[in-house]
Amino acid sequence: MLVVKEQTVKDLVTDEIAFEAVEAVFAAMARGDAYNFPVVREAIGYADALYGFKSGFDRSSLALGLKSGGYWPGNAERGLTNHQSTVVLFDADTGRPKALVGGNYLTAVRTAAASAVSIYHLAREESSVLGMIGAGHQSTFQLRAALKQRKFDRIIGWNIEPERLSVLEEVAAEHGIPFQRAELEILCKQADVIITITSCFSPLVMKNWVLPGTHIACMGTDTKGKQEVEAGLMPQAKLFTDEVAQSISIGECQHAFEAGLINQDDITPVGAVISGSHPGRSAADEITVFDGTGVGLQDLAVASIAVEVAVKNGLAQEIDF
Amino acid sequence: MLVVKEQTVKDLVTDEIAFEAVEAVFAAMARGDAYNFPVVREAIGYADALYGFKSGFDRSSLALGLKSGGYWPGNAERGLTNHQSTVVLFDADTGRPKALVGGNYLTAVRTAAASAVSIYHLAREESSVLGMIGAGHQSTFQLRAALKQRKFDRIIGWNIEPERLSVLEEVAAEHGIPFQRAELEILCKQADVIITITSCFSPLVMKNWVLPGTHIACMGTDTKGKQEVEAGLMPQAKLFTDEVAQSISIGECQHAFEAGLINQDDITPVGAVISGSHPGRSAADEITVFDGTGVGLQDLAVASIAVEVAVKNGLAQEIDF
Repeated sequence: MLVVKEQTVKDLVTDEIAFEAVEAVFAAMARGDAYNFPVVREAIGYADALYGFKSGFDRSSLALGLKSGGYWPGNAERGLTNHQSTVVLFDADTGRPKALVGGNYLTAVRTAAASAVSIYHLAREESSVLGMIGAGHQSTFQLRAALKQRKFDRIIGWNIEPERLSVLEEVAAEHGIPFQRAELEILCKQADVIITITSCFSPLVMKNWVLPGTHIACMGTDTKGKQEVEAGLMPQAKLFTDEVAQSISIGECQHAFEAGLINQDDITPVGAVISGSHPGRSAADEITVFDGTGVGLQDLAVASIAVEVAVKNGLAQEIDF
Repeated sequence: MLVVKEQTVKDLVTDEIAFEAVEAVFAAMARGDAYNFPVVREAIGYADALYGFKSGFDRSSLALGLKSGGYWPGNAERGLTNHQSTVVLFDADTGRPKALVGGNYLTAVRTAAASAVSIYHLAREESSVLGMIGAGHQSTFQLRAALKQRKFDRIIGWNIEPERLSVLEEVAAEHGIPFQRAELEILCKQADVIITITSCFSPLVMKNWVLPGTHIACMGTDTKGKQEVEAGLMPQAKLFTDEVAQSISIGECQHAFEAGLINQDDITPVGAVISGSHPGRSAADEITVFDGTGVGLQDLAVASIAVEVAVKNGLAQEIDF
């Protein structure tokens, strides 16, 4: 059995590798070759922790396994990350454990890769202004991955605590791209591509602010009740997601779905666009929305690649098990 | 992070250790200190495999984690066990992975421990004849653990393929206890304690065969549709289980429950007997039934003890993760 520790994953898994892995597994999901198992998510009643598993199987890559993930709010005080994730991969031919992979960094890059994949396949080619809503830990990963998909020449950012925007400013500066802070309405009206990556429970992006041709990647909503975009925008947009069942239950589309503004068939798995069975954006003035809810298969896909690259570099530890 | 491999677990975890761990966690479940998370179980559509996870948390022992388990029918040809299990334990205070533990042998001993716990707490003290129905791989574990609970002076066995009964005969011989093969009706009428450990989908134990005072541990039924005992016996017996929700859905009590012969409140968690909040057997002529469905917390309990004992013996491998 192989062990690939957190630091090794960080050293080896680039945005490009994660992009390819996530793009491939989204396509496999749309073809029906890969599917996610039911999610287990529990408030364990101890240490205020949320804990659970995302799991699945991809018949095309034979990735099988789970990510155990949890949120331990007291970790920061101990010098640990509050979000803790570990991936365990199994051999699809025998059920024997195959690899244990540090999952903290992987979770960040696979989430960033999802919005990047959506931008690559759905945003207008000539998109030049990127709007970032949210400036938490995950936002810099989203920004870095997004910048590789289009030739952005301006970044606009908003955050509930404006002082946090410096983390995005730094990434923009690294890339030599001008960064501006702006009110939400101005941000929405100027951006060609908007990424929302907050933990909000009420809409930040209002439907009348979003101009034709915009692509919005909604990456923050992964729980019942969370919301970043006004539900009324959804019926005016072309809707895409990683997994439709999650989109309407815990994703950004839950609110429009519950309000009866859209139905399940209005949402297309982005994998269908990747694999060519859906045209994706078909006009420059369409608004496209990607509802990124986060699925176990993304974790398995990037963890599998991490193991492959670690083995190639002699950095996977073989343990007797 | 610690690694305790399959062979180490086999060398260190005795029936007695498993008994104590399972007894403690059943009591914790009955007190409300421990609970199982929803079970994930999937036919993955590859290699005819069934795969999934059982997981849970015990606030009293702080055991947190999952057992990934699967059934790969083609493994035997490769010289591997068809049932493959691996336990991953997490630190309840931080969510960091704590230990990876081989789970094949643990699954066998924790299942055996469950019926042994039920015999210890529910069978008549003077029980002297043990009836074994089923002689597959798991049956020898059940038999060994049962023999430690009462002074049995005779063992009667039945199996669909009688030649397999030799595995039970060997265990009986090791203990110097006479072993007889018998038809089901005779076995049921003579045994004080009956353990059923088959994969049947129709009853083997008929209600008119079971005499007053018998204790039956139903250990084979863990899936919708499986059945070992005639449903009509259940309303005549005092019913106990590991987990009521599983008992009425995938356990032996599912049939009597569906037929409206019993309701949920007729089934008592055996942990209530262990912790003293339920008297258990209250008359020598009662029939007691234990419906052992198998819960993730059993796996976590024995795996936690395995890690403890391995550390004590210097046999837990520390890995950098």
